[in-house]
Amino acid sequence: MAEPTRHRVVIIGGGFGGLFAAKLLKRVPVDVTLVDRTNHHLFQPLLYQVATGILSEGQVAPPLREVLRRHENVRVELGNVTAIDIDEQIVHATRPFGELAIPYDSLIVAAGGNGTYFGHDEFSQFAPGMKTIDDALELRGRIFGAFEMAEVEQDEDARRAWLTFAVIGGGPTGVEIAGQIAELSGRPLKKNFRAIDPKSARVLLFDGGEQILTSFGDRLSGKAAHELERLGIELHLKSRVTDVTPDTVVVSGPDGESRVACHTKVWAAGVAASPLGRMLAEATGAEVDRSGRVAVLADCTLPGHPEIFVVGDLMALDELPGVAEVAMQSGIHAARTIKRRLGGDTEAKPFKYRDLGSMATVARFRAIVSFKGIRVAGFLGWLMWAFVHLTFLTGFKNRFFAVFQWVLAFIGRARNERTFTLQQVTARVVAKAAGIRPNEGDLTPEQ
Amino acid sequence: MAEPTRHRVVIIGGGFGGLFAAKLLKRVPVDVTLVDRTNHHLFQPLLYQVATGILSEGQVAPPLREVLRRHENVRVELGNVTAIDIDEQIVHATRPFGELAIPYDSLIVAAGGNGTYFGHDEFSQFAPGMKTIDDALELRGRIFGAFEMAEVEQDEDARRAWLTFAVIGGGPTGVEIAGQIAELSGRPLKKNFRAIDPKSARVLLFDGGEQILTSFGDRLSGKAAHELERLGIELHLKSRVTDVTPDTVVVSGPDGESRVACHTKVWAAGVAASPLGRMLAEATGAEVDRSGRVAVLADCTLPGHPEIFVVGDLMALDELPGVAEVAMQSGIHAARTIKRRLGGDTEAKPFKYRDLGSMATVARFRAIVSFKGIRVAGFLGWLMWAFVHLTFLTGFKNRFFAVFQWVLAFIGRARNERTFTLQQVTARVVAKAAGIRPNEGDLTPEQ
Repeated sequence: MAEPTRHRVVIIGGGFGGLFAAKLLKRVPVDVTLVDRTNHHLFQPLLYQVATGILSEGQVAPPLREVLRRHENVRVELGNVTAIDIDEQIVHATRPFGELAIPYDSLIVAAGGNGTYFGHDEFSQFAPGMKTIDDALELRGRIFGAFEMAEVEQDEDARRAWLTFAVIGGGPTGVEIAGQIAELSGRPLKKNFRAIDPKSARVLLFDGGEQILTSFGDRLSGKAAHELERLGIELHLKSRVTDVTPDTVVVSGPDGESRVACHTKVWAAGVAASPLGRMLAEATGAEVDRSGRVAVLADCTLPGHPEIFVVGDLMALDELPGVAEVAMQSGIHAARTIKRRLGGDTEAKPFKYRDLGSMATVARFRAIVSFKGIRVAGFLGWLMWAFVHLTFLTGFKNRFFAVFQWVLAFIGRARNERTFTLQQVTARVVAKAAGIRPNEGDLTPEQ
Repeated sequence: MAEPTRHRVVIIGGGFGGLFAAKLLKRVPVDVTLVDRTNHHLFQPLLYQVATGILSEGQVAPPLREVLRRHENVRVELGNVTAIDIDEQIVHATRPFGELAIPYDSLIVAAGGNGTYFGHDEFSQFAPGMKTIDDALELRGRIFGAFEMAEVEQDEDARRAWLTFAVIGGGPTGVEIAGQIAELSGRPLKKNFRAIDPKSARVLLFDGGEQILTSFGDRLSGKAAHELERLGIELHLKSRVTDVTPDTVVVSGPDGESRVACHTKVWAAGVAASPLGRMLAEATGAEVDRSGRVAVLADCTLPGHPEIFVVGDLMALDELPGVAEVAMQSGIHAARTIKRRLGGDTEAKPFKYRDLGSMATVARFRAIVSFKGIRVAGFLGWLMWAFVHLTFLTGFKNRFFAVFQWVLAFIGRARNERTFTLQQVTARVVAKAAGIRPNEGDLTPEQ
């Protein structure tokens, strides 16, 4: 291999931070390598729509290669970063056929975070999170499968447990999925069943705090709570989930401990930063906060390492929230800084977050929006939500279909993506009874 | 339970035959129970589009409950039929919470067929079939995953094996999927990769016969073969696949035995009738043909059992082909007969198949159509194919999107459904290297 002649930028992570950094570098004379563990970007704010049958996985998870195909200076590498050698300036990763060592001149770490069960990883099999496409498809199978199971279950208590859905965590993800499960049990499943009335489904939302959607402030939080209750969702605040089993959740709340019979659980609480955060902190002496995010300087670089940027959910700066917009803007800031330096401007410019507001859909036509002190709830909020998501999806070809499908799903009763397969858990249970086996073959000999 | 006062119709299978029978009985004063092993109908003729990233699973597999929601006299039961008691007139099935015994006055058996490996079931893990949504998603993961693997593979021979795709079987399914894999490697993946040129992918189509698409006649078969070769597909006729391993296919052809290094295989050869066929034949003395289909009387009933209809792929009658159109029409015929009898008209009317022609897409804008002696190939054939599929999908809400997506996929280069998940095999291999584990939890305690 010839000596590289161009500045080498390595980006770890193809989420909002990494993707937007790569995009900005399009016409900059650098060679970019973007490493991710999956081959797709993930439009995470809409993952709950995949879980509840509105969108297909392709609509929220376009392949990174496809999104970046016109970026000829970008190479997408499938790999799991295991170490960063900050002295030699090399990123080490594993991938299917061996190891990968990618040298860099500038490094943008946009590895984000994962869900966390606060030390109770054993909960995960009974209460999947909402972080990956697999999570969403798994939940789709469990949610729609629960109605199937309730339809065939003869015992009344057991049936009730299938028609009880628990969502743990009252942030935007928890509120949105709880709202959609409640919506689902109304119009979309109308007349679908004979033995059960899907409308009798209970949706419970648990949060340890004093209110839901804390970041939106008291007024919007109250409005959202009101909308959820109007939808029939049972809101349990100051309630911590202390145990999860196949068919129960145990909750410790203001009135003591209670046990709820319930098969379908969604874990929407807690985010832990990627372990790369601590790894970097140890190597550079940077600080990490309680959730493992790395404290960066005002320009998103690590102290003493102007060549290393940490952006998005992995970055701790000015108490910025872990939202897509912060990730995008900080990714862009890092890429712009690299571009400026190559042009000879080495002054460190601080990252300034332009708050474009935050929003959450609560129900059909109901969203809450917080934007520069303006706080909107209800239908107007929903219109703003729809408009922003439409704009957000720019750059993905599926925008058109996705938007159409939301509109149909919200105006009409359509849920076009209800199919679950043997690959999902509920279906495996059904399949076991039906004597069907999924293909369990392995593609390659053991490696 | 009170004594039923209405005539009870049980339909086994929610494919084209069973679904159309249930639909016809909408305003007939009967109680219908439709039993299927999955909760969805499957628009099987478009399954190859799911495997090659054009359509989502929801677009070809709508829930039976949803399709039949306005049919208030129809109850959809998830269950695996294990026995039919023709004396007591009861269908026995297993389902998640126990056994199901469904008494009938009339029975429509529309259980269809499965793929067969001609006694080599061990091939299935390396060469999935094209019969179920799981098959299609598994193949999607393998097909798109193969390009990912080729991109990271350093060894030139091994890379070639990842870029070699073998399709076994030269019927419509085999031809359509071979055509789409070849198309895929052209425009849709253009500029997506850096280390490989997807266009260098080889697609091999093996068939044991003298020509592909035999049922279309010599001229169209020749035209189709010509189109496939124009697409770069290597056609191997009179070639039987004698062994399949993780990374090879062994073929016995006119020039002896050869071994092709190849990771991704699609099994599109052979259909075996549901075992219910033989079960019925044994109980009633009816004949079964070589592939296990049950010989019926001219009115689709079993000899001596006018209350039992066998329709669709499980029915052997007048050498009718195993296509969707025969299944639909025979299902409708059975339902009409039941309706007539209830009206007092007990005359046995023979089933008359109205041949609406058969068609197969070969490539972008290229299809062959055979209709009452008229044989059309090329672009005109494709327009006819698109028109008929548009009409076919009537009754499924997804029609609009599905059609739009084909048009986009064929005119443009869009493949919007390329996402694969940890649930698919290729991704599991990738995931293993990346240190990610899919959620392997079971939803319920062992039953």
